[in-house]
Order: sequence, then C-alpha cells, then structure tokens
Amino acid sequence: MALAIRAQITTTHLNLNFKSIIKRSQNTRIQTKPIYHSNPLTHLVFSSPMSTFSAVKGSSVIRSSLIDPDGGALVDLVVPESDRASKRTEAESMPKAKLSKIDLEWVHVISEGWANPLRGFMREDEYLQSLHFNCLRLKDGTIVNMSLPIVLAIDDKDKEGIGASPDVGLMGPDGNLVAILRSVQVYKHNKEERIARTWGTTAPGLPYVEEVISPAGNWLIGGDLEVLEPIKYNDSLDHYRLSPQELRREFDRRQADAVFAFQLRNPVHNGHALLMNDTRRRLLEMGYKNPILLLHPLGGFTKADDVPLDVRMEQHSKVLEDGVLDPETTIVAIFPSPMHYAGPTEVQWHAKARINAGANFYIVGRDPAGMSHPTEKRDLYDPDHGKKVLSMAPGLERLNILPFRVAAYDTMEKKMAFFDSSRAKDFLFISGTKMRTYARTGENPPDGFMCPGGWQVLVKYYESKQAEEAGQQPAVLST
Amino acid sequence: MALAIRAQITTTHLNLNFKSIIKRSQNTRIQTKPIYHSNPLTHLVFSSPMSTFSAVKGSSVIRSSLIDPDGGALVDLVVPESDRASKRTEAESMPKAKLSKIDLEWVHVISEGWANPLRGFMREDEYLQSLHFNCLRLKDGTIVNMSLPIVLAIDDKDKEGIGASPDVGLMGPDGNLVAILRSVQVYKHNKEERIARTWGTTAPGLPYVEEVISPAGNWLIGGDLEVLEPIKYNDSLDHYRLSPQELRREFDRRQADAVFAFQLRNPVHNGHALLMNDTRRRLLEMGYKNPILLLHPLGGFTKADDVPLDVRMEQHSKVLEDGVLDPETTIVAIFPSPMHYAGPTEVQWHAKARINAGANFYIVGRDPAGMSHPTEKRDLYDPDHGKKVLSMAPGLERLNILPFRVAAYDTMEKKMAFFDSSRAKDFLFISGTKMRTYARTGENPPDGFMCPGGWQVLVKYYESKQAEEAGQQPAVLST
Repeated sequence: MALAIRAQITTTHLNLNFKSIIKRSQNTRIQTKPIYHSNPLTHLVFSSPMSTFSAVKGSSVIRSSLIDPDGGALVDLVVPESDRASKRTEAESMPKAKLSKIDLEWVHVISEGWANPLRGFMREDEYLQSLHFNCLRLKDGTIVNMSLPIVLAIDDKDKEGIGASPDVGLMGPDGNLVAILRSVQVYKHNKEERIARTWGTTAPGLPYVEEVISPAGNWLIGGDLEVLEPIKYNDSLDHYRLSPQELRREFDRRQADAVFAFQLRNPVHNGHALLMNDTRRRLLEMGYKNPILLLHPLGGFTKADDVPLDVRMEQHSKVLEDGVLDPETTIVAIFPSPMHYAGPTEVQWHAKARINAGANFYIVGRDPAGMSHPTEKRDLYDPDHGKKVLSMAPGLERLNILPFRVAAYDTMEKKMAFFDSSRAKDFLFISGTKMRTYARTGENPPDGFMCPGGWQVLVKYYESKQAEEAGQQPAVLST
Repeated sequence: MALAIRAQITTTHLNLNFKSIIKRSQNTRIQTKPIYHSNPLTHLVFSSPMSTFSAVKGSSVIRSSLIDPDGGALVDLVVPESDRASKRTEAESMPKAKLSKIDLEWVHVISEGWANPLRGFMREDEYLQSLHFNCLRLKDGTIVNMSLPIVLAIDDKDKEGIGASPDVGLMGPDGNLVAILRSVQVYKHNKEERIARTWGTTAPGLPYVEEVISPAGNWLIGGDLEVLEPIKYNDSLDHYRLSPQELRREFDRRQADAVFAFQLRNPVHNGHALLMNDTRRRLLEMGYKNPILLLHPLGGFTKADDVPLDVRMEQHSKVLEDGVLDPETTIVAIFPSPMHYAGPTEVQWHAKARINAGANFYIVGRDPAGMSHPTEKRDLYDPDHGKKVLSMAPGLERLNILPFRVAAYDTMEKKMAFFDSSRAKDFLFISGTKMRTYARTGENPPDGFMCPGGWQVLVKYYESKQAEEAGQQPAVLST
C-alpha cells in the first residue's frame, strides 16, 4: 500500500455556516467550538464559525472531552479488585469457552470502551445490524456506528458444553480464566455471509479471514463481559496501551481543546509528519489554542509482512526524539484492536473507536485499511471509497473527517511536500513496498524522506529478519 | 421455498405505551392512529394507544395517506405530454446508452416514485450508502431506507461514446428512445463487491446476478431521469400496474384508514388468505374502521421456475372471485420491480416501496426474498433474518411490521389453520415445491388448501408447460 499522503483540505472547502452544522443531523450535538465537518452526499467541507468561537473564547473551563463517547458514558468492564476473587470462583464452576490470541485482543478492546456502548461480544440483533447497516440503534433511538461485527466464535463441542447455561467462563490461550460472559446467546456463524458483507469479497487469502474466521467454529456466542483483570501483554509495551479513559485524562491534563487522531500501522515518514503538523497549524488558525495529536498505531493482529509493533513503536519514539513531531503536543499510544484489512468498512471502526477515546478530528488517508486484492492484480477497494464511506457513515456525524492531501518526495526541495501537479515530474512517490525494499537492501531513501533515527530502526529490523531467515534455511541449501 | 405462513402477532406482544412509539426514533412522526410497531433491538411489539385513538375518532377527514412517501412528496419523472416532442428531439442529439428489459423495469420503478425520493439511477454517493448502510441520508438529515443499489451499468464503448456529455439518451431494448438521464456521473462497477455486499455470497447461480450483473458493463452511470412517456408492457396486464399515486388515490376513494401490504411472487393459497383476513380482523379490533389489503404481486424479473406473472394474476383473480378474499377491501395490483432474491437486503426494498404506495402495515413471511443456496444444500439465508433485519432497518421506523404466524394444513379440520404445536402431528406443511408437484402431476392437494378456481389455473399452466416441453424434446428421444 502506498504511503503517499493525500489531503483535500483546501481553502476552497471553507464554509462558514455554523447553523448548517447544528442542523445537519439530529445526532449532532451543538458544539461550541469551531469544527471541520463532512457534508453527507456532497464533498467534505471545512467550517469555521468564528463568531460563535469568539462568543465562547472567554469561557474558563477547557476540556478535551468535547466529544462524548458513543452511547454517553464509557464502559469499564474490568471487575473491581475487591470482587475478583469471588467472580473467579464463580467462573470456575461455569461451562468454558476458549479464547484465541485475537479473541483476547477483542476482549481487551471491548472491556475498555473502544467499542462503546458495546458491553460484550455481539448478540444476533447487534451482529445483524452491524453486518447490514454498519450501525446500531440504541434503546433511546440514537444511532452509533458499528461497522465490524465484534463476535466470538465457538465450535460444536463448546456449544454442547454450554448447553442452556446463561453464563460462560472465557479462558485465555494459556488456559487461564480471563472473563465471564453473562446472559449468553448462541447463534449461527454463517462465515460466507459474514465475510462477503464485511469485505465485499469471498476470495481466499484475506489475512483476518484466514487467521481468525476460517478456523473458527460454526456458532457465535454473544453476551455481557466481565473481565477478571485488566488485559496485559507483558511485552514491555503495556505502558503505551492507554485506555480511552486514560487518554481522556491525559488530554484533560494537557488542557487540549481539540484532539486529532492519526491511525497507522506503518512507520512514520516525513510526509505523514508534514500532514500532522499542517493539520495542527490549521486547527490553530481556526482558533483552537491547544490541539493535541493522538498518534495511534494499531497494536493487535496484523498481516505477516507488516512491520511488527515493537519495531514500529521504537521507530515512532525516534520520530519524536528527532523532533519531527513535537512531544509537547503529541501523545503516542497503542490502539489494541486487531486489523481486518476491510477498507471502507473497517475505517469506520478505526474512526469510531477514536471518538470513544476523545478525538473529535480524524485524519483519513487514501485507501484506508486497504490492501491488494488477494487473487486479482488490483487494489481490493477503490482508493477513494474509504474516505467517501467514512464521510457518510451513520453514527459518525459528530466526528470531523480530515482527508489526506497528497504528499510525496519533492526532488527539488529534497523533502516530503504536498504534491504540486504543476511540476508533477519533480515528485517521487515512495510506496510502502519501495520503502521496505530500501530498508531490506540497505539502500538509503532520499534525504528527508524519514528522520535518520527512525530509518535506522527499520534498517536494523530488516537486517535481523534477513539474518533470521538465512539461519532458518535448511543446511543443504546454505552450503 | 416453503409457503407455510408464520406470524408472531400474539396477545403477549400487546404493549399499550404510546409515548415509547413517539420517542423511539427521531424519524418517527407522531401518529394519531393506533399502530403496531417494531421495537428495535428487542422483539416486535403491538401497540394500541386507545386513548389517543378515542380523541381523534370524531375527526371528519379519513385519509389513507396516513404515511407520507419517503422524502416527502412522490416523484413523477414522466415528462408532461406537452413537452414530450421537444424532449425527444433534444434526446435524439445526445449520446445514447441501451437499456435491457430489466433496466427498463427499473426506469419504470424509479419514474413512479416506488424508490422515492430517488430521482434517477444512483450516483456513486448513493450507491455507496446503499451498499454499506442500506439507507440514504437526505440533505435535511433524514434517513430513508434504500437497501438495493438501483444502478444502470454501461460498457466501455458506451462510456467512450458518452465522454463528457452531461446528458444521455436511454434507448429501450427495441431501440426506441425511452428517457433522458441528466447530469450523469460515470463510476466503476465493481461487480464482485456489489454482489458480495448485496447477497452475502459470491457463489455462482444467483438468478439476478446471472441475468443482469455478470453480462453487464464495467461502469455504472447515475443521473436524474426524465422519462419520455409512461412505461407500458402491452401484455394485457397494464391495468394492474397502478402507480403509487394511483394506489393512494384508490385508498382515498375507498376511505381506507389503514393499508396493509402483502408482497408475493407465488399463487395465493388459503393459508395466505387466512393470514390476510386475520390481519384485517385484528386491525378492526384495534379500532380501524376500514383497513384495506394491498395484494401486491411482484411483476418484474423472476427466476425461471417461478410461476409466470400472467398465470399468477389469473390465479389471484380467482381467489377474489371465489370469495376467499373480499374484493371490497382488497386491491390487487402489480409491483413493477424485478426480483433480486437477496433475502434480508431485498425485503427492506419490498417494504420501503410499499410505504411510498401508502401502506403503513407490512406483512413479512419466513425467509422473505430467500432461495436455496445456489451451490450448497441449505437455504441461502437464515429464515428468521429477513424479519429481524426488517424490524431493525434504518428508515423503516414508520412502517408497522407484521410477521407471519405459522399456518399449515390442519388434517383434522381439513383446512389451512394457524399451527398449533400442542397437536403438531395433525398439521401438514405444503411447500412451494410440493404445491408445484401436485399441480404438475395432476394430483389434487388436500381439500381446503386452495380455492378450486385458483387451483385450476395452476393445473392448466403446468399442463400447457408440460405439453410445450414435450414438444421441444428432440425427435430421437420422443420415440
């Protein structure tokens, strides 16, 4: 997937009509801060209600939490410490179901409220709404976005063991009790339909399908989660795994008056940095005093050829150390979700989860959560569909969508810059594949593509990977 | 597909809370008549706000149009007679695209407002919303249901011919100019994605896919329709093809105060009739004075082994002649849409289109718009998903969904009756396949399964079909 950066924030999109923001949807709250907003059924616009802003400028309380979590209050499904022993004893007597490593990532995601207001794995009504409408209607009639089915599969044997029991104990991959699922509902897992409606294809070779869905059982089990203790990975990265509540607290501590989220699963190059810094500049221009960037790499399952999380986190650290991004106005944290590579369907999940963490601006790239078609020589998704679908998605009306502007390496200026079509030949597009090839072959990318510290992390990773692969070759071939 | 009838309208579902109806969604209008309503995220409930009803009972105006068309006013895209000659002349100078027989059925559907507020074939924003969300957000923020992509495909050559022209002339299958498509937008037709997201499978053998999508071009063209004259079929059934506007007029003429729609593409047996008559009885019990049944067979494309439209219309006539349904309180008309066989996705379309025709009650069966999986030995859809998805679908909150109760042949009473599980062995389920086998082999179904006049229509059809098939066999085999 190309790492080239695109954004369509241009002055031609400026729109100073504040009333239209309030009116455009019954789900939209009245906001007392200037906002970007997406205009459904047309293209994206950029709104700056300066008069309204002036009116509230003098207000004394600055809160990051200008956007409420979906459904009102953040869920916290981790059992309080005082109850853990008794709940554990209770769980031991329940029928059990086993969680895979990726199921456990979902338990983590649900337990902290990333999927707010979901309180557990989906029951059938939620599953069907997610699959058909990409959103859930709550009991009070409000709509929240929910584009990915967040479900737990069990096999025939587990189903039989559970029988009519209302509650089930969930065991982690290591066999330890992790959680209780209450008031369960077991229903059919039609894998073909789930895959077709989530990915828009049933072609073999979709990473999440091969890893998670194909080997899974033919039943889904929904219910309310009680997690027996916070999910930890003990990989020396747990301190990066801030929950939505912890992130909101941190935004408050820094007195953020806008939070803009950047989802990524690739190393940060200077084109990304240009975009993020440019976004901050624009937010300042709009009147915000302290916009905070949430640099938010995805930390759950990724496909085999993606750069591993630990390497990415080290690379991101260097980017901040080297001053490419300002540590004062940037929070780096891990988004614990696994990756679906489901394009326009998944990008809604990526955005929705960040609302729950307090972000009211979301930067969307070209072909978000996209990949190559697994069996045909083309992108699986139209590269523009992600941002279009995101801008029209039900339940995301409150989020301000910021599409990328194209950035590429400017060979004249010797730096990453926004693409200028009047001198197209001066620009070099460096794809993710090309970047990895540079790192793998030890060749340096053009000066100014990435900060040197960050680049060294990648070079080191590919060197060690190659050494490892060489070591794994059978002796007969290595002679 | 089983013709057995199921309904879940039971007294245990009675719910007398009127406030909850008004509050449950911001899209729900305040209704001054008692209504059934579906309760999202739970099961279906039945509401009868008698006090409110009493308050309005004395009002003088009885109008059928208690439900407004989606988007407000019905579109009528047929060019007024006075303008037809000049529009035709104008169209002749435009680049052309050719319509298939089924494309023309869609032109018919759109032109009369069945797909209100759609004014033409979908542009990409509408297509994406339909595909991902099964609904469209209108400019004023309201949501209307739109579960099927209503699109027109063109091939590379047509696309080239159209070039940058804003307007295109549409020619019918016979080569005559039928319509103008204005302010067109051409975008990619990703067939695999469209099929996967619409049907939840990409298995070969889906009737609409094989007939329409696979042979179609790789581009879709959206735009606003101007239809040069009303679409007619000249098959002696045009008088049954009442437009939504004509139906509303007829409901008004009959002073209907409730309209309940029954979508079908099969002959009507006495189990169907039992259900329809029972629904009327219940509406009367609720306080309606004149509920009218819209018996609304689908008239567009159907798969090869379905009973043809002309035979069905003759059968339906007999059912009314034989007094199984009351002609005074029944309107038989043709719904001009082609059939997708897309189960839970399509049933939303079937229901939504009937709102536009003035129906505020919709009867939903088991496995609506379902069929066998084309390559596996199972139903393509979970038979319960249709009514579940329908009851939760965005944009259908105003429609009262009436799920079937199971009806079957009661061998003791010798008639179709609601299934009584306490004496299950007395009941005989007669599937559509079984019914066709009876008719084909000349065997009579049990007494009371269908009115004799209606049954004879089917016997005659299958006799003539067999004679035709026998005539088509090669001579060498017929000796």
